[in-house]
Amino acid sequence: MEFFKNIEKIRYEGPKSDNPLAFKFYNPDEVVGNKTMKEHLRFSMSYWHTMCGEGSDMFGRGTVDKSFGGNDKLEVFKNKAYAAFELMDKLGLEYFCFHDRDIAPEFDNLKETNRALDEIVSLMKDLMKQYDKKVLWGTANLFSHPRYMHGAGTSPYADVFAFAGAQIKKALDITHELGGQGYVFWGGREGYETLLNTDMGLELDNMARLMRMAVDYAKKIGFEGDFYIEPKPKEPTKHQYDFDVATVISFLRKYGLDKYFKMNIEANHATLAGHTFQHELRVARVNGVFGSIDANQGDLLLGWDTDQFPTNVYETAMCMYEVLKAGGFTKGGLNFDAKTRRSSNKPEDIFYSYIAGMDAFALGLKIANKIIEDGRIDKFIENRYSSYTYGIGKEIVSGNVSLEDLEKYALELGEVKELESARQEYLENIINSIMFNL
Amino acid sequence: MEFFKNIEKIRYEGPKSDNPLAFKFYNPDEVVGNKTMKEHLRFSMSYWHTMCGEGSDMFGRGTVDKSFGGNDKLEVFKNKAYAAFELMDKLGLEYFCFHDRDIAPEFDNLKETNRALDEIVSLMKDLMKQYDKKVLWGTANLFSHPRYMHGAGTSPYADVFAFAGAQIKKALDITHELGGQGYVFWGGREGYETLLNTDMGLELDNMARLMRMAVDYAKKIGFEGDFYIEPKPKEPTKHQYDFDVATVISFLRKYGLDKYFKMNIEANHATLAGHTFQHELRVARVNGVFGSIDANQGDLLLGWDTDQFPTNVYETAMCMYEVLKAGGFTKGGLNFDAKTRRSSNKPEDIFYSYIAGMDAFALGLKIANKIIEDGRIDKFIENRYSSYTYGIGKEIVSGNVSLEDLEKYALELGEVKELESARQEYLENIINSIMFNL
Amino acid sequence: MEFFKNIEKIRYEGPKSDNPLAFKFYNPDEVVGNKTMKEHLRFSMSYWHTMCGEGSDMFGRGTVDKSFGGNDKLEVFKNKAYAAFELMDKLGLEYFCFHDRDIAPEFDNLKETNRALDEIVSLMKDLMKQYDKKVLWGTANLFSHPRYMHGAGTSPYADVFAFAGAQIKKALDITHELGGQGYVFWGGREGYETLLNTDMGLELDNMARLMRMAVDYAKKIGFEGDFYIEPKPKEPTKHQYDFDVATVISFLRKYGLDKYFKMNIEANHATLAGHTFQHELRVARVNGVFGSIDANQGDLLLGWDTDQFPTNVYETAMCMYEVLKAGGFTKGGLNFDAKTRRSSNKPEDIFYSYIAGMDAFALGLKIANKIIEDGRIDKFIENRYSSYTYGIGKEIVSGNVSLEDLEKYALELGEVKELESARQEYLENIINSIMFNL
Amino acid sequence: MEFFKNIEKIRYEGPKSDNPLAFKFYNPDEVVGNKTMKEHLRFSMSYWHTMCGEGSDMFGRGTVDKSFGGNDKLEVFKNKAYAAFELMDKLGLEYFCFHDRDIAPEFDNLKETNRALDEIVSLMKDLMKQYDKKVLWGTANLFSHPRYMHGAGTSPYADVFAFAGAQIKKALDITHELGGQGYVFWGGREGYETLLNTDMGLELDNMARLMRMAVDYAKKIGFEGDFYIEPKPKEPTKHQYDFDVATVISFLRKYGLDKYFKMNIEANHATLAGHTFQHELRVARVNGVFGSIDANQGDLLLGWDTDQFPTNVYETAMCMYEVLKAGGFTKGGLNFDAKTRRSSNKPEDIFYSYIAGMDAFALGLKIANKIIEDGRIDKFIENRYSSYTYGIGKEIVSGNVSLEDLEKYALELGEVKELESARQEYLENIINSIMFNL
Ligand SMILES: [Co+2]
Ligand SMILES: [Co+2]
Ligand SMILES: [Co+2]
Ligand SMILES: [Co+2]
Ligand SMILES: [Co+2]
Ligand SMILES: [Co+2]
Ligand SMILES: [Co+2]
Ligand SMILES: [Co+2]
Repeated sequence: MEFFKNIEKIRYEGPKSDNPLAFKFYNPDEVVGNKTMKEHLRFSMSYWHTMCGEGSDMFGRGTVDKSFGGNDKLEVFKNKAYAAFELMDKLGLEYFCFHDRDIAPEFDNLKETNRALDEIVSLMKDLMKQYDKKVLWGTANLFSHPRYMHGAGTSPYADVFAFAGAQIKKALDITHELGGQGYVFWGGREGYETLLNTDMGLELDNMARLMRMAVDYAKKIGFEGDFYIEPKPKEPTKHQYDFDVATVISFLRKYGLDKYFKMNIEANHATLAGHTFQHELRVARVNGVFGSIDANQGDLLLGWDTDQFPTNVYETAMCMYEVLKAGGFTKGGLNFDAKTRRSSNKPEDIFYSYIAGMDAFALGLKIANKIIEDGRIDKFIENRYSSYTYGIGKEIVSGNVSLEDLEKYALELGEVKELESARQEYLENIINSIMFNL
Repeated sequence: MEFFKNIEKIRYEGPKSDNPLAFKFYNPDEVVGNKTMKEHLRFSMSYWHTMCGEGSDMFGRGTVDKSFGGNDKLEVFKNKAYAAFELMDKLGLEYFCFHDRDIAPEFDNLKETNRALDEIVSLMKDLMKQYDKKVLWGTANLFSHPRYMHGAGTSPYADVFAFAGAQIKKALDITHELGGQGYVFWGGREGYETLLNTDMGLELDNMARLMRMAVDYAKKIGFEGDFYIEPKPKEPTKHQYDFDVATVISFLRKYGLDKYFKMNIEANHATLAGHTFQHELRVARVNGVFGSIDANQGDLLLGWDTDQFPTNVYETAMCMYEVLKAGGFTKGGLNFDAKTRRSSNKPEDIFYSYIAGMDAFALGLKIANKIIEDGRIDKFIENRYSSYTYGIGKEIVSGNVSLEDLEKYALELGEVKELESARQEYLENIINSIMFNL
Repeated sequence: MEFFKNIEKIRYEGPKSDNPLAFKFYNPDEVVGNKTMKEHLRFSMSYWHTMCGEGSDMFGRGTVDKSFGGNDKLEVFKNKAYAAFELMDKLGLEYFCFHDRDIAPEFDNLKETNRALDEIVSLMKDLMKQYDKKVLWGTANLFSHPRYMHGAGTSPYADVFAFAGAQIKKALDITHELGGQGYVFWGGREGYETLLNTDMGLELDNMARLMRMAVDYAKKIGFEGDFYIEPKPKEPTKHQYDFDVATVISFLRKYGLDKYFKMNIEANHATLAGHTFQHELRVARVNGVFGSIDANQGDLLLGWDTDQFPTNVYETAMCMYEVLKAGGFTKGGLNFDAKTRRSSNKPEDIFYSYIAGMDAFALGLKIANKIIEDGRIDKFIENRYSSYTYGIGKEIVSGNVSLEDLEKYALELGEVKELESARQEYLENIINSIMFNL
Repeated sequence: MEFFKNIEKIRYEGPKSDNPLAFKFYNPDEVVGNKTMKEHLRFSMSYWHTMCGEGSDMFGRGTVDKSFGGNDKLEVFKNKAYAAFELMDKLGLEYFCFHDRDIAPEFDNLKETNRALDEIVSLMKDLMKQYDKKVLWGTANLFSHPRYMHGAGTSPYADVFAFAGAQIKKALDITHELGGQGYVFWGGREGYETLLNTDMGLELDNMARLMRMAVDYAKKIGFEGDFYIEPKPKEPTKHQYDFDVATVISFLRKYGLDKYFKMNIEANHATLAGHTFQHELRVARVNGVFGSIDANQGDLLLGWDTDQFPTNVYETAMCMYEVLKAGGFTKGGLNFDAKTRRSSNKPEDIFYSYIAGMDAFALGLKIANKIIEDGRIDKFIENRYSSYTYGIGKEIVSGNVSLEDLEKYALELGEVKELESARQEYLENIINSIMFNL
């Protein structure tokens, strides 16, 4: 059965095309730098938004039906699976990401739920082979069910912690079974609503305990994918413990978990935390924890996670600049954790949305590559810090000087000679010159 | 010479008084819990705002003259000192905090600048003895001079780094000389304006190098005060590396500096970072790095550091709750890093402002103490997490269980039984009941 | 049938009581100034949150069941009605507010929907008489159904506009039938998601047309309640046309509708628009359009409408100060457009929440009244502007001077003599002195 | 005397050029649509930032000296004038904008100040003729001097109001004298710091009185330029009365001033008010008050007016789309109310900055023109609203239907048939397709 009728495989037709169901910039096999676009970008479908998101918001119910003609709980999810692979196939998406509860229904009893999950996983495995698709990462949904209303690993109730552990175990099992290359922790409810009722110390300790167990279990089953934490500062919770990359690093280092985790950085979560997307990527890169990306965009004038498909090419360009500088993805990729707008309620809107996002990242990749090949930006930075390669600067970097040495040096100098300009506007204009002269 | 004529020593007159030059709630010798108010609160004057701030803003020049009748650079600063001690005396402030450049003028040459500084320090020492006042903490101003426009410890220019080091050495010397109990790093320019010109990795390494040198030098001279870092997310810089408490901890742990530093937490910096003041205090407490406080308040509808005198008693109460829970101040205190509004341009406004802040913190202390004595809040939390004291919860905390154990437990349970309420509104109403029934 | 078993009528027990199911500050018959608390405050239950809100959020399903034991659509809503009046009775709430779709179910066909609505309205009428309760205002839900996904009065589709009109007519009919004293327009979807697809001019014209029709129809049926517009800047829509009070006034004046509408001001919408609650009330007062209030509070560190029960007494005090200055409510009142937190999932939490809100407003009223009786704030303002009561100031106000006259005056003056202080900190401390000395 | 040595006239060299002192996209005489770029864009220099801004911020002193070698107050300002015209000449800027206090110094006495102003105006007139430059608009600085600390037209002190009037008169005189095509009111201090000390009603009345006087005086002297109000929500003031375009319109309509004023819309002020730049332009267009533009950009993650040179081509494109749709500028233009970053401290940085801004707007113009020529966006909108051109939609627009008619229509319809998609992602991708295929 075909779910997206009248839609053919999306092909690259180049920038002059006005076919809305064609790529204008994403040309999978085009080589950029040392790899093809497809190899660089490793695009992934988010199962939750794409196959399950029905367009409800806090003030209105869904505008789209995602039951895909299924008549009972299980059939609905089987049809989702068929539709998912048809969609990935037509869009040329190589990967997908999922939560346990996206791909199979939840029942009143964990045993029954797991049984249904196994059934769908088996179907999925077949479809993956048939369509040649891969799992970028899997995860467990530890936030939608009311049992998690006070947190999962940070719940005040031990039974809830136990349930969270059970879900993670199973999610690791199936991710491993499906050959997944990563596993993500997103702690949507791991935080607090008010400090008046919160034992923050115990909650953080427990969160670390749960992650440690996951690491141990992965080792046991031979799962060699990457573990990622996906920071988000708030929403649904008033404050989430995984606020941003730096906060997560602080947490990991405290509990000796830093060597086991990398970051899955989402553009819209970065901005909700008061950072640019590039900032979060840079912090991860500098700390050696860059892993994977949830590619979307937010609206900086709105205070919630809009999870829009990414279309701002400045953002995609600076993102890809950081990715290239980090040496490219290893096990990670670009997962479109993005949803079509509530009023983009037609099946073709899903296609328009992915095309928009994939084209925007193709442009971003080409621009980032050109920035690096052009060299002016990188050269500027290199020159700017050159005083640390000789004289007192070299001494500072090598750790051979004390405050007393510096005072002696400064007293002799008397005053610093006039400094160079930081040239922000000049550099911003170089970016425009490159972007609009591809 | 008397600078604040017609103003007597400010005395406690109780809540019924309508004398604007009297305390309504701050009664220094009143015992609250185990100590007097004065011992709990350790109020400190900020030398920069109080003695130097003239009310200029980005769109207008100063509205107040703080030359205190001085005719040359040095005399101005000497008069500032006399006026400062008169003010502290009249307000009953026991401590003060300062930057090197607040207390003495800067000249074209570091040697000359240091000489002037020595002269003022000598005067200050006399005044401290005469008035029985103490230094809460000292610091170096590494942000006002154009030489620091690209950063100090994170400047791309080694000469600037050297100057910063020289200033820190001298600031440590004089803080030590004056018996200061702490030394603060606030990295106003330690950050970036644009990533296009920034080598974040080198900058962070260098910032750590500078702090390491300071720690080493302090040990050498026998300075036993606390080292503090004061987080702020932005302003003047687009992004500051010391974004918030968690970010600073992440940095300190990376460079093995965590055992040498505590936090100086500013209320207005917390909110600029997207956190409540209490959140930052709690994070510091949970991580064992609570140190000192810059007591002010911001305006959450404004996006810059307004540094207002604190008057919101909800904020002061929850602040003092965290302080009491942390065991009270050891070497730290409540430094009013606050400035009178630009249009509060009369000498008496300084007094009204400090009185407002001191009264607000006296109320906060009494409320916090009563919350703890009342016990309902703390008891609620204790009960809420009690499932971790027995059964599976106890096993989780003791580290004896694996994901497989949890799965087994959860499968047997089938589903979590109905959870308790988090009772936020009930708890908020308890706070009001306590606050308005002192 | 009793829905809230084990909960008695909530009574005033005074501030020393630790009975969580008693008022500590709200004493309905206590006289404050010229009226009883109850007459001043005119508390109203919001039908939607209280009877329909089940605690779902964007990341999780409901935590509370609000079907009240009903087995079919209609029975559910009948039981909601019984429960609602029991709740109002037990809490001593005199008024309620509702949307058409809160009180009765929607069917596939408007006729059927209206028939069900009529049935419930008839039941409600009986219950209102039985319990002596009144409608503060009614309204139509023009945002939840997918047909309104592009707007209602501003929908690009005329059929949708027609449906909106039909719903408004019916909602006016039933509000009138139930003796409602007001009718509210809240344009949750009257705005845009992107300007790329929006004809703003036509949309605004149409919105005005719809309001004009409502005004005409009200006249025709003899409805003499107040029409209110409730401003909100965004959410669910990216931008709502009724951004804030000033924007709404601008709109009303353009279309000659200003004499027919007042404002229903919500605290949390004020802050989302970048204003304080008091600001919006003041703007309404100064422009003669103050009407009614949606009493709740937001979290200024969160970017969405949290609709929390109001507990910040600074906010309730300044709100009541504006209300008293406006002469008190006429047809409006304090509607708790507030929801218990998602994790406050027990029936008694609804009671705790209303008690918290009602106590906070009782405190606010007492403080506001005391500020006015104290007189220092009002007197300060009067003195501050006194230069407009004589000399050049009087001339300016009377409109007798031109720029040339002012230049002549200023040239003679040469320079303005030193100005008074604005005394912000002094005034803030007066507020604290009053608040904490009731 | 040449002030910007080693800098030649900036010429267009096309996108392939890597000469930092050349335009890549701004080609003044290139025809775009119906006019040359130069005619479309009407670029203007802001005298204050460019000739007076020295790079100080709230935490540091200036980094640039803008005395231009002048030795006394008057000579400094004369040299500024010479330098200004040299700069405009070299950059090909046709217009400039100024405050009275940018172009001439202030003395202790208004008479003396005005005398100096006259002297400079006379010099300026000569330079304007010599270099063929024009005044886009003039204004009075009513915010920097301490006398305006409580407001100008909204000052509580009548003498200050009189001074403001005198300054406006003189500023109108000299703007007229210099052939200026506009006059701007920016109310930097027309607002409040706290409502506790503010009589908002009187302040707004007075602000209207002052504007009325200005309108009357302009008529008297035959000034036929446009009057503009420049909205800004806050900063320096906590709240400014001219919050945004809608608020200003509300004010103008209240006082019958709406036919005399248009808007000068600043990009960075739009975003501080929670709006996109395009939103503010659209609101002005729809209300017939579009006038002129302060072209800059802010940083949406920072809460203050950064006044950066505009380089985001998405923003410049949507801005120029609105300008073209409004029929282009009449008397207004694009004034760069932008400052080089504090650390862009070299003379050439001013050139790099203007080049960056002018290139970004040239790109924006070309893209906007192509969007319109392409037609897909406009056609989409036209189709989307077509239901208002026939049937019930036509009736609605013509005002012939009542709520009862709509109810009748809706009851017959029963339910709205499935709606079209709003196609946001599709439209966003069209924009990218056009932008990156110039
Ligand atoms: Co994500
Ligand atoms: Co997200
Ligand atoms: Co501070
Ligand atoms: Co601060
Ligand atoms: Co509301
Ligand atoms: Co709301
Ligand atoms: Co401007
Ligand atoms: Co600006």
